[in-house]
Amino acid sequence: MRILGIDPGLRATGFGLIDTRGDAMRYVASGVIRSGEGHLPERIGRLHQGIVELVREYRPTVAVCEIVFVNVNPKSTLMLGQARGAALGALVTSGMKVHEYTALQIKQAVVGYGRATKEQVQEMVKRLLSLPGVPSTDAADALACAICHNHGGPVIGSLGRSLRSGRVL
Amino acid sequence: MRILGIDPGLRATGFGLIDTRGDAMRYVASGVIRSGEGHLPERIGRLHQGIVELVREYRPTVAVCEIVFVNVNPKSTLMLGQARGAALGALVTSGMKVHEYTALQIKQAVVGYGRATKEQVQEMVKRLLSLPGVPSTDAADALACAICHNHGGPVIGSLGRSLRSGRVL
Repeated sequence: MRILGIDPGLRATGFGLIDTRGDAMRYVASGVIRSGEGHLPERIGRLHQGIVELVREYRPTVAVCEIVFVNVNPKSTLMLGQARGAALGALVTSGMKVHEYTALQIKQAVVGYGRATKEQVQEMVKRLLSLPGVPSTDAADALACAICHNHGGPVIGSLGRSLRSGRVL
Repeated sequence: MRILGIDPGLRATGFGLIDTRGDAMRYVASGVIRSGEGHLPERIGRLHQGIVELVREYRPTVAVCEIVFVNVNPKSTLMLGQARGAALGALVTSGMKVHEYTALQIKQAVVGYGRATKEQVQEMVKRLLSLPGVPSTDAADALACAICHNHGGPVIGSLGRSLRSGRVL
């Protein structure tokens, strides 16, 4: 199964692709789609187009999109919402089934701790996918989305990892 | 010129199409795209698809999308943002140039008063387009977007109407 993780953002939308076979995971690609300069419709259009091209190039089996939250700044919330709406629209109309997890669920599944820092997520993503270096935060968050889904979502994920690490729940 | 106006909303996104020749305007179509039930990605996908189909069917020259604002409820703001992001993504990737106006600018251009009520907008839209009945609020807001654009945006719009009504600015 090939999983596409998306970490939506207006300035930069992170993406990460992994191939999975059971618990085994292999890194495929990751990066950032930038909306660039200009009016909002053009910027939203670039995010949309970037995702359509990703799906066309990598043909993922399933997509996972982080659930975004209300920001302290309501204007930022509105911008983030619009970026996520563009991402969802692009994924669904590209024929993808989209799963959603909150940042808390993703961190729980990947780091085992819902309040993990950005750095801890980057480090765990690097380790779990045997990467030579640490991915950028946007790419790491997107890869973490994909890993979370492969762990069967947050609950099964943390159960699985606890069992693998020999801990009894 | 054929103008497509869009009034974004998660539950219902209003649309309105008018044909214009100078100041003259002719009603073409209006209505509402409903996102229906289900998970958010599916609902967003339906809004996106509805807009893509509108553009394909009516081939507008230009699109106009109302600028949405921060709601008292931050969660609603986030939902509205996602609906608007899907709409913008669909319009831009359908090849449309998108103009944006705030509700205040639209009301100013259509009713001549930025704080006009929904009912006043509906009534003016009905009159300006010689409709047999009052359109639904979502459709009226979308048609008002299109009318605002034909009035050359908010400033030129209110100037034009003031001159037509014989008032001196």
